[in-house]
Amino acid sequence: MEKIAVVGLGMLGCSLCASLEGSCVRLGWSRRPEVGQWAVRNGLLEEACATVEETLAKADLTVLCLPIPVIMEYLHRYAPQMKDTLVTDIGSVKGCIERAAVENGVRFVGSHPMAGTEKSGPESLVRGIYEGASVFIVPPPGAAEADIAQVESLWRKVKAKPRRLSSQEHDLLVANTSHVPHVVSSALALSVLDVPENERALRFDGCASGFRDTVRVAASSPRMWKEILSHNREAVLAAMESYEERCAKLKKLIADGDFDGFEKEFARGKEMIELWQSTKHPKFRR
Amino acid sequence: MEKIAVVGLGMLGCSLCASLEGSCVRLGWSRRPEVGQWAVRNGLLEEACATVEETLAKADLTVLCLPIPVIMEYLHRYAPQMKDTLVTDIGSVKGCIERAAVENGVRFVGSHPMAGTEKSGPESLVRGIYEGASVFIVPPPGAAEADIAQVESLWRKVKAKPRRLSSQEHDLLVANTSHVPHVVSSALALSVLDVPENERALRFDGCASGFRDTVRVAASSPRMWKEILSHNREAVLAAMESYEERCAKLKKLIADGDFDGFEKEFARGKEMIELWQSTKHPKFRR
Repeated sequence: MEKIAVVGLGMLGCSLCASLEGSCVRLGWSRRPEVGQWAVRNGLLEEACATVEETLAKADLTVLCLPIPVIMEYLHRYAPQMKDTLVTDIGSVKGCIERAAVENGVRFVGSHPMAGTEKSGPESLVRGIYEGASVFIVPPPGAAEADIAQVESLWRKVKAKPRRLSSQEHDLLVANTSHVPHVVSSALALSVLDVPENERALRFDGCASGFRDTVRVAASSPRMWKEILSHNREAVLAAMESYEERCAKLKKLIADGDFDGFEKEFARGKEMIELWQSTKHPKFRR
Repeated sequence: MEKIAVVGLGMLGCSLCASLEGSCVRLGWSRRPEVGQWAVRNGLLEEACATVEETLAKADLTVLCLPIPVIMEYLHRYAPQMKDTLVTDIGSVKGCIERAAVENGVRFVGSHPMAGTEKSGPESLVRGIYEGASVFIVPPPGAAEADIAQVESLWRKVKAKPRRLSSQEHDLLVANTSHVPHVVSSALALSVLDVPENERALRFDGCASGFRDTVRVAASSPRMWKEILSHNREAVLAAMESYEERCAKLKKLIADGDFDGFEKEFARGKEMIELWQSTKHPKFRR
């Protein structure tokens, strides 16, 4: 049976281990040995390895489930030990990671599953989180077809839907669909909630379930979002422009008192949301 | 037992009827008689009345659960029939409704429960939707204390938490906490999803559960949002400015490459969301 190693046992790494149960031999490593032991005790792993080197040596395929800067660092530091394993990762930005892999001569095909929650840590794992999710498969130019297929096969084991993209296409896409929504959501949370203390209780009372959902992703890890945005700055700024244009258009309709025009734009947004949801796995619908 | 009439049997009206069960005699009226009959058959009402006039004549307290323009119209048209009932409403903007009530000499205290979903229609009712929700009680200047207390008592029956505000305070508050979030959410949905048809499939694949939640409220009724914003234009434009300032600040940090500064701002947003959630009923948390 294929030996798949998960390096980094946070929320997404542990969710991957849980979802892979029965389809391969699962090896894992965490910088905190007690997390590896916990994962074995709870049936998430067949084996917890003591070092990254040992993990890489035993694995047919290694998945780096680490923060972006650590993925880049490990592709450099452990490149010599990666010669007998195919390597993939789950980082949210692909260009910088692909460059690190190529520069260090690692046999690498990137991936990015479009799944997650605002929570982090092994205890927040979600079994089945990848089911029905899109996963972008990002092979560096010239990657071997067999390697690409092997990474696609990993994601099919957890019922995700692979789609191939170049790293440039990927990074611009997720700037629009994920990175800008996080920035906008945070700006909204700040403008509504970060008011002088004597106004706070009233503001808090005025926020209900609609607001809660709109700002949910703004409660994600600040460090992770710093890392994502700092590695995708140009694409995020370009995507911010597209968003700001649509926002300015809605604001102008309100300022001009053109509320029929506003209704039409809002209805277009609703229509597109419903069209999008009709293409998704039921768990992505509401 | 107090006779409470619900005029308008949409999602919020039917949810109110369901939540009031056992605490009063419930009368109701819908412009579609079959909805009134359905509500009686399903135990949402003790009695469905044939006309608005009949409903008003029988009720101690009448709750107008109608679109804003219809509430304003009814306060004008049925003012003579409202002389023996106290009237309240659930409209999302209070200034325009208060003016209509005062101009027509109706015994009126406004209310606005901070509860809802993106769905509409009687079949979308949610029993208990008002439980734990803030409800703003908006008495016109000079309203009788007994009338205010009677409306507060209505909302306590469904376990909502009443808080008194002037209509001006209310309309500025909800511009920030609800109206602008809807505009921003719609702008985001449009910028991400409303792309040329040949780019659509890729965009759709790039959107996951975080995006879904951020745009959920943008799938609300376009006509309702046209009505809300057109009656709260000034306050919404002022609140848009506050939002745009915070958004521009985040964008500038990204453009300047000040990612430590970005992390700090994002962390402040997360902190405020968590502080806000700690003050709310568990159902408003995630």
